[in-house]
Amino acid sequence: MQLNKEHIEYFKSLVGEENVKADKAHLIAYCYDATKERFEPDAVVFPRDEQDVSKILKYCNEHEIVIVPRGAGSGFTGGALPSNGGIILSLERHMNKLLEIDMENMVGVVQPGLINMQFQKAVEEVGLFYPPDPASEEYSTLGGNVSENAGGMRAAKYGITKDYVVALRAVLPNGEIITAGKKTIKDVAGYNTAGILIASEGTLAVITEITLKLIPKPKFKQTYMGVFPDVNKAMNAVFKSLAAGANPVAMEFLDALVIKALKQKFPQIDLPENAGGILVGDVDGSSQAEIDSQIATLKEAFAKYGSIDFIEAKDEAHGKELWFARRNASPATMIYGTKKLNEDISVPRSKLPEALDSIYAIGEKYGFNVPCFGHAGDGNIHVNVMVKDKTNPKEMEDGHKAIEEIFQLVVDMGGTLSGEHGIGLSKAPFMNIAFNEAELELFRSIKRAFDPKNILNPFKMGLN
Amino acid sequence: MQLNKEHIEYFKSLVGEENVKADKAHLIAYCYDATKERFEPDAVVFPRDEQDVSKILKYCNEHEIVIVPRGAGSGFTGGALPSNGGIILSLERHMNKLLEIDMENMVGVVQPGLINMQFQKAVEEVGLFYPPDPASEEYSTLGGNVSENAGGMRAAKYGITKDYVVALRAVLPNGEIITAGKKTIKDVAGYNTAGILIASEGTLAVITEITLKLIPKPKFKQTYMGVFPDVNKAMNAVFKSLAAGANPVAMEFLDALVIKALKQKFPQIDLPENAGGILVGDVDGSSQAEIDSQIATLKEAFAKYGSIDFIEAKDEAHGKELWFARRNASPATMIYGTKKLNEDISVPRSKLPEALDSIYAIGEKYGFNVPCFGHAGDGNIHVNVMVKDKTNPKEMEDGHKAIEEIFQLVVDMGGTLSGEHGIGLSKAPFMNIAFNEAELELFRSIKRAFDPKNILNPFKMGLN
Repeated sequence: MQLNKEHIEYFKSLVGEENVKADKAHLIAYCYDATKERFEPDAVVFPRDEQDVSKILKYCNEHEIVIVPRGAGSGFTGGALPSNGGIILSLERHMNKLLEIDMENMVGVVQPGLINMQFQKAVEEVGLFYPPDPASEEYSTLGGNVSENAGGMRAAKYGITKDYVVALRAVLPNGEIITAGKKTIKDVAGYNTAGILIASEGTLAVITEITLKLIPKPKFKQTYMGVFPDVNKAMNAVFKSLAAGANPVAMEFLDALVIKALKQKFPQIDLPENAGGILVGDVDGSSQAEIDSQIATLKEAFAKYGSIDFIEAKDEAHGKELWFARRNASPATMIYGTKKLNEDISVPRSKLPEALDSIYAIGEKYGFNVPCFGHAGDGNIHVNVMVKDKTNPKEMEDGHKAIEEIFQLVVDMGGTLSGEHGIGLSKAPFMNIAFNEAELELFRSIKRAFDPKNILNPFKMGLN
Repeated sequence: MQLNKEHIEYFKSLVGEENVKADKAHLIAYCYDATKERFEPDAVVFPRDEQDVSKILKYCNEHEIVIVPRGAGSGFTGGALPSNGGIILSLERHMNKLLEIDMENMVGVVQPGLINMQFQKAVEEVGLFYPPDPASEEYSTLGGNVSENAGGMRAAKYGITKDYVVALRAVLPNGEIITAGKKTIKDVAGYNTAGILIASEGTLAVITEITLKLIPKPKFKQTYMGVFPDVNKAMNAVFKSLAAGANPVAMEFLDALVIKALKQKFPQIDLPENAGGILVGDVDGSSQAEIDSQIATLKEAFAKYGSIDFIEAKDEAHGKELWFARRNASPATMIYGTKKLNEDISVPRSKLPEALDSIYAIGEKYGFNVPCFGHAGDGNIHVNVMVKDKTNPKEMEDGHKAIEEIFQLVVDMGGTLSGEHGIGLSKAPFMNIAFNEAELELFRSIKRAFDPKNILNPFKMGLN
């Protein structure tokens, strides 16, 4: 239903005048995310607590008003965009508190609007560690991280957000409050509703509280860099070194095009002359002996599979230098075009060499540079189809065709449309590449089970 | 619908005469599980492959015939019992193969009827490790393990079955085949259907293939035993030592009643004279230095929190001796009665001392010995209310009252009805202690979304 003045007055009576905004400035401020698509909501509502969320959802359900939950709006696929109008339910203003660090049970309890990095810092101060580190960690919220099942660089060793969600509190579209999971390590009573809420992109319920597993903070860390003559050799070394017992925190890669771009954009950068592929990352552990043993394993395996150089960081500053190239890979690629069509596909690690070769071949067929970098250690590639002239419709169309071919290729290899970013709006057209009709119908059934009136972030994930 | 001859003939035409049994001997052989309750099915069908499963489900859905999937029938809560008749779909006879150990991506692909220990042994032969080790590991199937989200002793360090499920293939009640998840580490496309199938006790779909994460096998292992004057001190040392950085594979406990029973039943056992509580387990690691450091951390923390002795296994044989007491705890408790009402509740680790004190108080109130042992390292207690005379209805009734009080206590502490065994039939009456009406209604909605005709293992988990 179209939002009217009466609805807005009701929301104001619920959460206070200052927490309901329908002026142009607010509608614009909440109309975008990292996709750069824009859809203005009809209003923005800032609930103060779970009870507010419950009352808002109950009312919206009764009046069939669309609600789009939003954290920081840093998503890459439009999950937080009000593409069908309705209200933005913004959780960042009030529901952003760290509620508890429970040292005895090693869990943290947070509200959904808390920023990932604030949580990481708080737990590290007491000697604990929260591993999931999406590139957006400085500004993305934990509620958004759970809703998208955020990954990050440390996934190779430590897994992703879902591996740390112990329990959730959430409000269903009908306003009912549920808990899913406990602070216990084992809990097999009832369906694993926390499991299905993770990665559900705000389409099933509004998460109001998150309990996250913490682990002891590793005491030692060291950065390494392996240099290879080409990216195929580097990719081959990824799964071979891991199978040989290496267990790095991160194993990131840069391909030849990215390396070339970095040298051009950052002339001060110190990258080996003949590098055609680079693996960079950290190892960590509870003793220096563990670090030394990890570094030795990596060095040996890399050499065996064709590396031409292996650099060990001498200290933290040197480590930061080694990381500089990876951290600046994304902006550097812009030397190749005016528009980047970037996708975060993921394949089984052993398929990385073949996947990259095939991706380059698709790029060549259409005449695109396709610089690639990303999380090789967990098989997650950031593919960048570089469009030279974004005002050229033919070139843009070809770019999208290339992306679709890449998706098909990846799915045929047993991979996935998205390793980290989710489906949202951007990848919705490709859902039928990845899923058969029975699977899509099951997704729709699950959506109906939680949200029979389809008020919660509707028409996302290709479910319409 | 009541199964008739025509149905049976149809099943025979599908899977062959030899794979459909309705004779008395088979009906009896498939009427029980570890609960010792008995319900005869109308027939037992042994599908040969996923296509058979699909055709059987499609037919049963059309004819509204109840299907109960079954692995080894080793469950403790009646999940595989045909309490409402129908057919047993037995996956142990044909669908029990190890399909692949993928060394490069470190995953194993199995059929649901494969026995847990057979899988563990196969992967260890190639230097890999599958940690989930339910006490039933010698005979329970991996399909059953996934359906119940089985735990085990190694959960303290390595987590439970759900932490290792990478992907599933499954057949929906309408016969459609779905895949959920990929061999990739990251996959955020679509709902996490694998997440909801885990622990769903065979009520949502029939799992036909499981992809499980494997990790490198730790090279070193050592057994330790901490001896305490009473169980309260031991329980206190559990979470304090873990918070101090100890990370044992297992941290199992025995209370005073169990220790007394062990000494009486196994006089040859060498347990310290004044032991009122024992913690026993293993540490593991990739180097002897890691083992030594773990042992030192445990020893120091145990001493700080009141241990009177700390024993380090001198070798593997000595380690086995130390484990003997824990391995024989369950049979030993039978000195206290003729009937054991045992439940596998779980609490946040920091609540263990308080939980045990309160459990003993409930036992005392009704005049029962309640020996307890189990997985202290992950908060999972095996509570045993010992009924002296099971032919005395009053005593049996009191036993069940005590169990109900214990459940309420545990839930009030933020714990769960079941850490490992599931709900099935046995714990179904207690679901309303653990869940509110909104949560139960959500479970029912999820069930309807997958199984609208309620043919798959109906009336389990308190969902009717």
